[in-house]
Amino acid sequence: MNPVDHPQNAIGCLAICGVGLIGGSIARAARSRGVASEVIGIGKNKGRLQKAVEQGVIDRGFTDPEGAAAQADLIVICTPVDLIASQVACMLPHMRETATITDAGSVKGEIVRELSAQQIEASRYVPGHPLAGSDKTGFEYADPDLFEKAAIVLTPTAETADAHTQRVRTFWQALGGNVLTMPPEEHDAVLAMTSHLPHLVAAALAAAVQEDQLSLASSGFRDSTRIAGGDPELWTSIFRQNAKATLAAARQFQDKLSQFISAIEQSDDAELKALLAEGKCRRDAWREQRLRQESQ
Amino acid sequence: MNPVDHPQNAIGCLAICGVGLIGGSIARAARSRGVASEVIGIGKNKGRLQKAVEQGVIDRGFTDPEGAAAQADLIVICTPVDLIASQVACMLPHMRETATITDAGSVKGEIVRELSAQQIEASRYVPGHPLAGSDKTGFEYADPDLFEKAAIVLTPTAETADAHTQRVRTFWQALGGNVLTMPPEEHDAVLAMTSHLPHLVAAALAAAVQEDQLSLASSGFRDSTRIAGGDPELWTSIFRQNAKATLAAARQFQDKLSQFISAIEQSDDAELKALLAEGKCRRDAWREQRLRQESQ
Repeated sequence: MNPVDHPQNAIGCLAICGVGLIGGSIARAARSRGVASEVIGIGKNKGRLQKAVEQGVIDRGFTDPEGAAAQADLIVICTPVDLIASQVACMLPHMRETATITDAGSVKGEIVRELSAQQIEASRYVPGHPLAGSDKTGFEYADPDLFEKAAIVLTPTAETADAHTQRVRTFWQALGGNVLTMPPEEHDAVLAMTSHLPHLVAAALAAAVQEDQLSLASSGFRDSTRIAGGDPELWTSIFRQNAKATLAAARQFQDKLSQFISAIEQSDDAELKALLAEGKCRRDAWREQRLRQESQ
Repeated sequence: MNPVDHPQNAIGCLAICGVGLIGGSIARAARSRGVASEVIGIGKNKGRLQKAVEQGVIDRGFTDPEGAAAQADLIVICTPVDLIASQVACMLPHMRETATITDAGSVKGEIVRELSAQQIEASRYVPGHPLAGSDKTGFEYADPDLFEKAAIVLTPTAETADAHTQRVRTFWQALGGNVLTMPPEEHDAVLAMTSHLPHLVAAALAAAVQEDQLSLASSGFRDSTRIAGGDPELWTSIFRQNAKATLAAARQFQDKLSQFISAIEQSDDAELKALLAEGKCRRDAWREQRLRQESQ
């Protein structure tokens, strides 16, 4: 496909700040779908950017955010969440009048609060979060179809201009995503439960097992701890940025787990079976929801 | 392959008691590898047994355990773990002098204790546990390669005759498994941590999420809760049979999770990162161990 096929999606220059797994996948998805006429990458490491160019992930690499910002029509910040607010603040003054900036951070409220605390005029910033990823890192694993049928959450504020929200929505839809919008705080509360808590639990589960027990760990352990393989640095900043909601979710999980444990302690099989059925019911409901989406 | 190809593995009549996912997979594995000259299935439901015959899972179906036991050279009990001891006790008196009986139960200590409490002469019973499975149920999902490179734990007691242990070892090796032996109590303690606890945690994690949050649950939730889709009835009996070790494992997990939670509460990023790194390190170690095994 080329831009002419769907001019409504055609943005000129797409800038990806942080060309890792997510940034690289956005770049590849945009190129393979002809959504942008040019894709440029912004990063600290010249060598890595050069490699991304050689591998066809991006067209050109920049190490100065301001210079890249001046050329872009749409900027997507794909760096660790704790850097996003300052990068948005740094790029906004250098962007074209008509340009839009968004991000792919897993936490939204803290970014919005930081920008307003700094009194940044952020009408062109559309907070976003594509619910797609991997425990792998680096653009070498970039997948142009990573966002096919993935939920993409946009959390515009009162300040965000509708035209920019609409542009980002159209962009993600062109990449195959299902776009929905909600307030930043609601996003953070739900993701704390569906993403941040599972990571915390998977990491604690893996850490609780002794090295010499691993040879008797099978498919159950494999799946329930897969996300524990993620980058500790990245996740530390996610938990810091969404501490309050994550702690609330963790307390709900601890209460639920305590119910399972006391049912076992009290040999209350009826109660234990009911609790296991509750978990299965919720898991099956998620699965059916997914199958419906995929068949659409 | 036919038995002549590897007579060392050839057992005459293999009886599978409980033709579900595991029993059906053992049957298919034995047939496809020519390990047994005949595979018979034992179950309560005539219609299901007939369907298993039609689908080529077993050669013949029996609803009377005694009648089937009298014809078998090797019997594998694949029913829910709380039924295994009584089935072993019921079949032993009807078995041929030379026949062997084993099982596929996820908990071993309680079965051994029940048999010795009933003063059953159990020298021909070899307690076993193939570490392979699925959250699916029924022989429709039976997989002849389910045990390829899977760990198979045998927990013979002082009473178990070596010749029978050796026979069961050879049988599982012919099905592609890596056989190891350990005391029943050691098996139960390790599996509590690597299998039973992960199921408990996955179920609690799935149960803690609200229905209306599922649309924002992605690949992390998918994997960390997959096993919560398992049968509540089956798992209730596993937890009952291995209650003590599961509770001990659960307490270790709760302590570890509390360390993660207080690191977040205290905004101790260094500590949180170290804990996440510990989880990643253990998960990566498991993965490397698996890759080594698979490359062998």
